[in-house]
Amino acid sequence: MSSPLSSSPPTATLLISCPDQKGLVAKIASFIYSNGGNIIHADQHTDLLAGLFLTRLEWQLTGFNLPRELIAPAFNAIAQPLQANWRLHFSDDLPRIAIWVSRQDHCLYDLLWRQQAGELAAEVALIISNHDRLAPIAEQFGIAYHHLPITPETKAAQESQQLELLRAHRIDLVVLAKYMQVLSAEFVSQFPTVINIHHSFLPAFAGANPYQRAYERGVKIIGATGHYVTQDLDEGPIIEQDVVRVSHRDQVEDLIRKGKDLERVVLARAVRLHLQNRVLVYGNRTVVFA
Amino acid sequence: MSSPLSSSPPTATLLISCPDQKGLVAKIASFIYSNGGNIIHADQHTDLLAGLFLTRLEWQLTGFNLPRELIAPAFNAIAQPLQANWRLHFSDDLPRIAIWVSRQDHCLYDLLWRQQAGELAAEVALIISNHDRLAPIAEQFGIAYHHLPITPETKAAQESQQLELLRAHRIDLVVLAKYMQVLSAEFVSQFPTVINIHHSFLPAFAGANPYQRAYERGVKIIGATGHYVTQDLDEGPIIEQDVVRVSHRDQVEDLIRKGKDLERVVLARAVRLHLQNRVLVYGNRTVVFA
Amino acid sequence: MSSPLSSSPPTATLLISCPDQKGLVAKIASFIYSNGGNIIHADQHTDLLAGLFLTRLEWQLTGFNLPRELIAPAFNAIAQPLQANWRLHFSDDLPRIAIWVSRQDHCLYDLLWRQQAGELAAEVALIISNHDRLAPIAEQFGIAYHHLPITPETKAAQESQQLELLRAHRIDLVVLAKYMQVLSAEFVSQFPTVINIHHSFLPAFAGANPYQRAYERGVKIIGATGHYVTQDLDEGPIIEQDVVRVSHRDQVEDLIRKGKDLERVVLARAVRLHLQNRVLVYGNRTVVFA
Amino acid sequence: MSSPLSSSPPTATLLISCPDQKGLVAKIASFIYSNGGNIIHADQHTDLLAGLFLTRLEWQLTGFNLPRELIAPAFNAIAQPLQANWRLHFSDDLPRIAIWVSRQDHCLYDLLWRQQAGELAAEVALIISNHDRLAPIAEQFGIAYHHLPITPETKAAQESQQLELLRAHRIDLVVLAKYMQVLSAEFVSQFPTVINIHHSFLPAFAGANPYQRAYERGVKIIGATGHYVTQDLDEGPIIEQDVVRVSHRDQVEDLIRKGKDLERVVLARAVRLHLQNRVLVYGNRTVVFA
Repeated sequence: MSSPLSSSPPTATLLISCPDQKGLVAKIASFIYSNGGNIIHADQHTDLLAGLFLTRLEWQLTGFNLPRELIAPAFNAIAQPLQANWRLHFSDDLPRIAIWVSRQDHCLYDLLWRQQAGELAAEVALIISNHDRLAPIAEQFGIAYHHLPITPETKAAQESQQLELLRAHRIDLVVLAKYMQVLSAEFVSQFPTVINIHHSFLPAFAGANPYQRAYERGVKIIGATGHYVTQDLDEGPIIEQDVVRVSHRDQVEDLIRKGKDLERVVLARAVRLHLQNRVLVYGNRTVVFA
Repeated sequence: MSSPLSSSPPTATLLISCPDQKGLVAKIASFIYSNGGNIIHADQHTDLLAGLFLTRLEWQLTGFNLPRELIAPAFNAIAQPLQANWRLHFSDDLPRIAIWVSRQDHCLYDLLWRQQAGELAAEVALIISNHDRLAPIAEQFGIAYHHLPITPETKAAQESQQLELLRAHRIDLVVLAKYMQVLSAEFVSQFPTVINIHHSFLPAFAGANPYQRAYERGVKIIGATGHYVTQDLDEGPIIEQDVVRVSHRDQVEDLIRKGKDLERVVLARAVRLHLQNRVLVYGNRTVVFA
Repeated sequence: MSSPLSSSPPTATLLISCPDQKGLVAKIASFIYSNGGNIIHADQHTDLLAGLFLTRLEWQLTGFNLPRELIAPAFNAIAQPLQANWRLHFSDDLPRIAIWVSRQDHCLYDLLWRQQAGELAAEVALIISNHDRLAPIAEQFGIAYHHLPITPETKAAQESQQLELLRAHRIDLVVLAKYMQVLSAEFVSQFPTVINIHHSFLPAFAGANPYQRAYERGVKIIGATGHYVTQDLDEGPIIEQDVVRVSHRDQVEDLIRKGKDLERVVLARAVRLHLQNRVLVYGNRTVVFA
Repeated sequence: MSSPLSSSPPTATLLISCPDQKGLVAKIASFIYSNGGNIIHADQHTDLLAGLFLTRLEWQLTGFNLPRELIAPAFNAIAQPLQANWRLHFSDDLPRIAIWVSRQDHCLYDLLWRQQAGELAAEVALIISNHDRLAPIAEQFGIAYHHLPITPETKAAQESQQLELLRAHRIDLVVLAKYMQVLSAEFVSQFPTVINIHHSFLPAFAGANPYQRAYERGVKIIGATGHYVTQDLDEGPIIEQDVVRVSHRDQVEDLIRKGKDLERVVLARAVRLHLQNRVLVYGNRTVVFA
């Protein structure tokens, strides 16, 4: 299932973080300019407390003098002395996504619709679920669906199975689209690029049953949070959040209904930002070059 | 310092909660109608889980056949068999407010400006502070300012002093407008009508230093919460909340600055809703007949 | 395609508007109470300028003494002397919807997903389009799809055809889910219950190409509007609006993309409010008893 | 009335726009780096349609090798061949503001409070009004207040007077804080740096009485717009907008009240963005490097 996006001319994007020092913008921009690149997006952030410089540069590949395979080694010569962490991405090199679901269909439908509509520059390579319920949707969209039920006893074995699937399909990103199982620390250490949607305004109502607890607390606004998954449940770096007003008239089922609209859009925005290489993680925070 | 509001003709408002049963709307509306009252606002809510009926009725006093002093006893005859809790309020009977502050002036300025502009149907009778810093503002607006410094040792004595002031000035409502001291359970039990502004989106970041903690957690939205004060810090019934977006560019001081705008408006809305008798508390929740 | 909603016990809803006078709440509530009805939702609004009283009452049919077919005649006896306009609706009497589309699929997908998820208490009886492009979606969801292409010459004939379809399928509500044709005044006079989604924050950018014009004007926020259709294009009573922030980084195609998320949710909310009989129109305004 | 802001070390900011071409980021960043500057904020935008490159660079003056008075001439040598428009600003060089008001005090109070609180890096040099009503506030804050009443006959003469005052006080920015007079084209051509707050979500309800018209149209959301003033009323480049929800319960006076909160915060944000040199105008649009 490939995206109809690819009409715009290809670009390269560098995401870089390194200890702050003078001349970083000049050095990095000169590398691109001296090789004939036209920068179409440049954004930077300096975290003065952390002494960290973070930047995103995107330039057109048409007319760039370095062949693609030489860009990384050439940039490495600049990055090494700066002690920089960096990633290079080409816009026509579509990441491969695995969407994980349980029984709720709204985020799955939404992501598949957006991919089809060209909003997500990625291929949806497979769907994994601990239930068989959403298999018909996978079929509708022509995507492989792997049903891997999980019990406390089978969890470890199933995670091995899942990891194997991710490798076999060369998956770059796992999207937990209302996957109601906690990933083990072991799994996360082996496959660290996972985005989750949590159905609350974190850190409020981390953990189970956020809508029930939001109702009981009597809040006047509910939220949803798209974040990277780390070994600490619901503690990973936040990419995007949004909220909606509720009132005393809203019962728990109304919170769930209103929350679904939030979950769809917040997860989609987080995934899109990630796919566009606009998110840099440092510590437990993100810089989002939106 | 009295309000220029009072031009509209006076109304009476009943706020009622009672166990749900058939005929409540009919009975209560008939009481008003049979005495010649014209209802200009009627709203109700039934909490089916709690089996509770809650309503707010406001009617014009002009043309109402019962003299003011007989309305409460007459309604009591209806309310008793329904096991109803109820409050009666006349719109031209202005509540008396004490505003409590510490060192930050934004909420104080805002409330005084609103009172002057006719947005708050109340008299601001006095200002109490544990610092002397904001005394000049009190003077600007011609309101008595009581400086009651607090140390762990003097806290109990000062609270007695505060209670005495509230009684002496016949205060109906205390507004904690960034008063950075925790009220003792003892105080709250003796003066229970207190509205606080908490500078976070509760229940996230309850307690101290919410902006610092929001920054550290890397949230993408911050909030403020106007709530009634109970003996459990930051756990009281929520009246109003609002939020604003932040990004990686916002340092802690930017969160504080953006938060001030939220705090002003959320506190003002909460106080206004209370003064208009639009808030009913049950359990730890509120019904807001906005 | 019927809704899985119907588990909750059936209710009756009255939507009433009439010249304001004393005793209206009492009279109407007494009618329900005296027949043994338990009111679960009552809301009212008095437009003092227009001298108009508007109310919505919903009560449980279980235990109500009047058989369904006698409720309307019985209430009519009360309504006549009050010069009231009123509508009676039973919650298990599902309205029948026709969704009209052109080439964009996002609102169609969204409405069908919501209907399936039980968020819309209605049957989607048919889809009408001036293009054949979305026929596969209709097939996916098992709904009849009528392709009626329109040219200036065929418009009148096609509208007759459309009206016939609406009658043949006993349609209660037409939803224009990005139907990019203007309905004739003739059509609207014959079938007046039509909800449209306009892709701007009306009255800004009424008419064609709102996103292009929003981009050119350099606005910092865009919106969408769900409204009833009247003979004046984009001038009908507004049911719901929402907005989203944009920046200089957003090109017209970004506005379109962000706008789609708004359009989906605003149209869905407007349709849901209508289906729950929460909307009363008077003049060119709506009262929404949400 | 000077700002308590000035504690952070001084910076220089360049705002530049020029025809897009390769190497702009590298050239400009190299200019700063080669002179020993440490960039703490760099943002850019390329409008591909307009073929325009726009950027903002801010660097620390401490350790910068060029003396202040040589920065502009030195940069000019780079800017000329690029056909660039540019502005240079030093953070400790506080702009001088004139606030213009009519009879409403909320924006005036708000701006003065923010200036005092250190949120606005500027001096408020004088207040001009066509009414004498707000003179006491000016006195409270110790700022000169010029009462220049305006009639159709005196308008031209008064505008000359106003221009003279602006020159005499070396004013950099005029803020129309609910100044209810239209500036003549003549005035605007002579003093072009004027920010206005319009009490609607432009382009909806441009012109007079926006709240009344919003009420009549029955919108569900109202807004406010901070924009630069041009010769076409309410048509100038938009800096900032925000909105708030309203309902059928809100009368015109409620819209006005809710709108005041919007006006305060939207105007303050627009002024702050301008003062921080974050706004670039091109055509009728703005780039806001927030």
